[in-house]
Amino acid sequence: MNNVYGVILGAGEGTRMKSCLPKVLHKVAGKELISHVIGCLNHVKMQKLFVVIGNGSELVSKHLEELNKKINIAPVLQEKRLGSGHALLQVKKYAAGLKGHLIVMCGDTPLVKQTTIKQLLRYHIKNKNFATVLSGIAENPYGYGRIVRNSSGNVSCIVEEKSADAEQKLIKEINSGIYCFDLQALWQALSKVKNNNSKKEYYLTDVISILNKSGYKTDAVSLTTEEEILGINDRKQLAYAEKILRNRKLEELMAGGVTVTDPSSTYIDNDVIIGQDTVIKPNTLIEGKVKIGKNCIIGPNTCISDSLIGDNTAVLYSYVEKADIRNNIKIGPFSHIRPGTVLKDNVKVGNFSEVKKSVIDQGSKINHLSYIGDAAIGKGVNIGAGTITCNYDGTKKYRTIIHDDVFVGSNVNLVAPVKIGKKVLIAAGSTITENVLPNKLTIARARQIIKVRKKK
Amino acid sequence: MNNVYGVILGAGEGTRMKSCLPKVLHKVAGKELISHVIGCLNHVKMQKLFVVIGNGSELVSKHLEELNKKINIAPVLQEKRLGSGHALLQVKKYAAGLKGHLIVMCGDTPLVKQTTIKQLLRYHIKNKNFATVLSGIAENPYGYGRIVRNSSGNVSCIVEEKSADAEQKLIKEINSGIYCFDLQALWQALSKVKNNNSKKEYYLTDVISILNKSGYKTDAVSLTTEEEILGINDRKQLAYAEKILRNRKLEELMAGGVTVTDPSSTYIDNDVIIGQDTVIKPNTLIEGKVKIGKNCIIGPNTCISDSLIGDNTAVLYSYVEKADIRNNIKIGPFSHIRPGTVLKDNVKVGNFSEVKKSVIDQGSKINHLSYIGDAAIGKGVNIGAGTITCNYDGTKKYRTIIHDDVFVGSNVNLVAPVKIGKKVLIAAGSTITENVLPNKLTIARARQIIKVRKKK
Amino acid sequence: MNNVYGVILGAGEGTRMKSCLPKVLHKVAGKELISHVIGCLNHVKMQKLFVVIGNGSELVSKHLEELNKKINIAPVLQEKRLGSGHALLQVKKYAAGLKGHLIVMCGDTPLVKQTTIKQLLRYHIKNKNFATVLSGIAENPYGYGRIVRNSSGNVSCIVEEKSADAEQKLIKEINSGIYCFDLQALWQALSKVKNNNSKKEYYLTDVISILNKSGYKTDAVSLTTEEEILGINDRKQLAYAEKILRNRKLEELMAGGVTVTDPSSTYIDNDVIIGQDTVIKPNTLIEGKVKIGKNCIIGPNTCISDSLIGDNTAVLYSYVEKADIRNNIKIGPFSHIRPGTVLKDNVKVGNFSEVKKSVIDQGSKINHLSYIGDAAIGKGVNIGAGTITCNYDGTKKYRTIIHDDVFVGSNVNLVAPVKIGKKVLIAAGSTITENVLPNKLTIARARQIIKVRKKK
Repeated sequence: MNNVYGVILGAGEGTRMKSCLPKVLHKVAGKELISHVIGCLNHVKMQKLFVVIGNGSELVSKHLEELNKKINIAPVLQEKRLGSGHALLQVKKYAAGLKGHLIVMCGDTPLVKQTTIKQLLRYHIKNKNFATVLSGIAENPYGYGRIVRNSSGNVSCIVEEKSADAEQKLIKEINSGIYCFDLQALWQALSKVKNNNSKKEYYLTDVISILNKSGYKTDAVSLTTEEEILGINDRKQLAYAEKILRNRKLEELMAGGVTVTDPSSTYIDNDVIIGQDTVIKPNTLIEGKVKIGKNCIIGPNTCISDSLIGDNTAVLYSYVEKADIRNNIKIGPFSHIRPGTVLKDNVKVGNFSEVKKSVIDQGSKINHLSYIGDAAIGKGVNIGAGTITCNYDGTKKYRTIIHDDVFVGSNVNLVAPVKIGKKVLIAAGSTITENVLPNKLTIARARQIIKVRKKK
Repeated sequence: MNNVYGVILGAGEGTRMKSCLPKVLHKVAGKELISHVIGCLNHVKMQKLFVVIGNGSELVSKHLEELNKKINIAPVLQEKRLGSGHALLQVKKYAAGLKGHLIVMCGDTPLVKQTTIKQLLRYHIKNKNFATVLSGIAENPYGYGRIVRNSSGNVSCIVEEKSADAEQKLIKEINSGIYCFDLQALWQALSKVKNNNSKKEYYLTDVISILNKSGYKTDAVSLTTEEEILGINDRKQLAYAEKILRNRKLEELMAGGVTVTDPSSTYIDNDVIIGQDTVIKPNTLIEGKVKIGKNCIIGPNTCISDSLIGDNTAVLYSYVEKADIRNNIKIGPFSHIRPGTVLKDNVKVGNFSEVKKSVIDQGSKINHLSYIGDAAIGKGVNIGAGTITCNYDGTKKYRTIIHDDVFVGSNVNLVAPVKIGKKVLIAAGSTITENVLPNKLTIARARQIIKVRKKK
Repeated sequence: MNNVYGVILGAGEGTRMKSCLPKVLHKVAGKELISHVIGCLNHVKMQKLFVVIGNGSELVSKHLEELNKKINIAPVLQEKRLGSGHALLQVKKYAAGLKGHLIVMCGDTPLVKQTTIKQLLRYHIKNKNFATVLSGIAENPYGYGRIVRNSSGNVSCIVEEKSADAEQKLIKEINSGIYCFDLQALWQALSKVKNNNSKKEYYLTDVISILNKSGYKTDAVSLTTEEEILGINDRKQLAYAEKILRNRKLEELMAGGVTVTDPSSTYIDNDVIIGQDTVIKPNTLIEGKVKIGKNCIIGPNTCISDSLIGDNTAVLYSYVEKADIRNNIKIGPFSHIRPGTVLKDNVKVGNFSEVKKSVIDQGSKINHLSYIGDAAIGKGVNIGAGTITCNYDGTKKYRTIIHDDVFVGSNVNLVAPVKIGKKVLIAAGSTITENVLPNKLTIARARQIIKVRKKK
């Protein structure tokens, strides 16, 4: 929307991660923590997104640059870490003139749902609030900031555990750390926040009571759960978030008609699309951008990343990267399909076979122990066991071209560049260095000699 | 038993499965939902089993035909789906003259135990009931049909959630949807069921009150749990049932003296037999009919289907299909044993090796990067790394025969049909096209030439 | 400590394990049950450790001998199994003259923590007790022996479930079966234990009331949980203990800065050390003594045992045993690194490649379908696809030596013993039997012939 802005507070140190990497760059379910938060916020189509960086700011801003191609992100450096209020205040100089609504989130909360943020914004606008706190109801609120409401129902303040009195400790409505503010009101209030506390920090939560006392409408809306607002502070929480995110994706896929034999050993990234009646068997990882068609069997023990898979294709015990795999194909067990590979309909790649940067046309078979690299292989070709395209001379890579209906015998070397015409037969054990015209037989091997075996 | 019949209601649409496959054909723990139910019913040795089919009736009846070889199954088509009472009524014309007991189950309940059905039937007969409802006690009965008993303890009716009054809603005895009927009484009552309800359907549950009002003894017996009677309506429930069934099998195996390192990543089909002190390591799938002996180590990362494995054998990181693997054998990591393979005692198949339709006799070794297909290999044979049996000429397959104590060098091609006599030595890098008599040495390669390497 | 001794009661039959192996030799998390208990006790640096053996005593004492190199262990045979008191009494003849403290544990309790035993001993000594029972508080104490205290707080006796009166059944303080005794007082009391009970057994628990009645101070200290004191009696409990031990290790690693994508499919033995920011992907097993550096990616589908791995190394879909893998190395998918292998910095081993007992120097590449065994390979060497070191002649193994910057073409056989000088080029498809001086090109293959292909 025109007048909606976002801020992500991502400067924190994350010491409990015990890491050289800034906390917000740790990955969960295939994406950095901060990328999850950006994706969530971006769902409301903001005008601009400010990200406050600090710890490991170089690495974080480098990561933001990459994302910047799609989203209008402005990194804002917080040089000293003086509290959440101070962090947000760093944005003021870049946003002072702007009018509208500002959504504030933390960079370490990957579980917040897009719909939750949308509902928060809608509620904020509809109720003409100047500040709206996203809240939740916790059965055991211990440790959380509590939402203190006055008689009119407005939020008078947020009180932290250690400052809460006995009555306030009973409040079950908790602060998620996610807010929607009126921009102009926010800057006014933020400049009034003091650091007269034990840690000498400027707390963002103080803004609520300042706005409330100044007569601005401050509200809270309970739209979230403890699970959703979990901030990741250590590796155990990282593993927990991974599990939650994985389960959400798996439930979405199962609802759409995909069979997942064992959800607890299936790992599918969020951008993966899978067609009806496809079965995902145990211990399968599907990472990055992958689209899989209908009626496929994927797994067990399979990893597919950044690839297209057609319909009725089976991939078992195999590793597939950046490949274009069409329909009615069988891959595996123990196959490795590498980037730049196109397998057209009805191709078969069998055990201990590797295909790289090659197009294999319809119905061809690479069944055993072969390496096919930088090749174009026609239709109906049979690649014998142990066939190797010698595509590299130590300096450059060369191409192998094999036309339709060629029969390549076992343990054949194809020393590229080399072209093999239609219907050629290459004898087993041959090293082929010269082009072969169609319909020929070619052979390059020594005669068999039989002698008496010496006794040892 | 002579006078026991069964009906499985399997005509349902299963729209929440989001599938082109009829619901009852979806697989769980290696078998179709309906096959689980048939297996459960079949345990009581019925005279005949009727299966009401409707949605996807062609596919379902085709599946039933396959099973029909072992069990007397009669498919009954329900052309219109007008409720469970209507479904059962379709059976009448095939069963009108029969006398005895009829067990009725749904086709989507794979978790019901054989013993439960046996106990139900026994109770039904012993108590001379005309209808016996299999019931359970639910802590939270919401959503279930409730068993309403009269002062004499008989069941006066089954009342659905939406029709239940406040008092009935407190009843914790729930209907499982599984019944035992007197056949003659059932047909009488069924013809009186009306469809004067909002959905215009004929409900099977109405039979109970009709029988009760007519003075027939209607009873219920609580023999089951919510878990056991779960009907599968979506893929999430399918995954849940998979887990329950897997756990049951694993607990049976563990009770019998098998170590399962991690039950949560071990997948063993129901027909698998495993001997004492065998260890199943993580991420292992054992599918179909498999028998494994004592003191084996299976896994990690291993898939075995439809095979025999002897004692003291280790299979790790490997894929084994339809093979006969004897004792003291080591397979893997990364081996592929294909259908028709026999490995006799003390054989070793190592990494990146594939064996297909071959007999490997005692103590022979295929340690590295080999493809052995359509071969008979004697005792004490050493197959060198990279050895390939060239068993296919593009049209037909041929056999390779290697006698005892042969030493095959590395990267050797055996162009079938070919026979190698006892104690022959085949030099590395040879392509063998001619038979070799015993005790010979054979070689088929070019001499090594050394030249100055040109500068690039 | 000087005057601290230990006894492990390990003679039990373990019939519910359904095993030919003595119960205490069953493995959990990579180690025998009794080895876990010994490791736990050994943490307090005992003078001597007695292990009472009985069932399968030969196998157990053989196992103890192996451990004996590090710890002073004395096996004590209990010929008849007449109860826990009788078992402990067998130690008397070897320990009658000793003074000091004796810690008694069972051999089937692998979950007891080292710190718990340390705290028990410290409490026992500080309070000048003659017997101290390690106790726990159970919410539901059913089935456990209860700690009965007198008015002074001392333990008057331990009462078993079946002998407990109504009041005693309410006691929630339970007996762990772990004790600390004054040695001299123990032997006195133990000789007074009677077997006048239904099983005609001598119970160790009777010692407490005997000591108490004799005026010795008998105490209990609640330092443990039900989880920790679980005794393993069947395979299901074995799998449960496995899970608990695995989780403890994973939590330790995560707290230290290791990312574990899915703890539920990750299996890491206790002696494994892993550096900061290393990521362990799903379905990874790390067994035995393994040290892994920083910033590595291990897994998915990887098994590493008894190996060193440096920093910034990736091992995916691979199997690594007893190897020394340095920095910035990439292994996999589908590689097998066997014992005695050293991979120096920047080496790459690719798919379907096996390395055994070989040193591969910096920057060399073994990318596809190769077997390198008993070799020394220099820097910057390129090993072509399908290359095999023919290291075995059926009798002995021989070495292959390849100097720096050699280029080995595809499907080359290196018949060992053989030496290849610096910068040599070996043509594809060659079988090399003679040494080659530096800077040469060598070739051993037949010329290619092209003929008309006969029609079939």
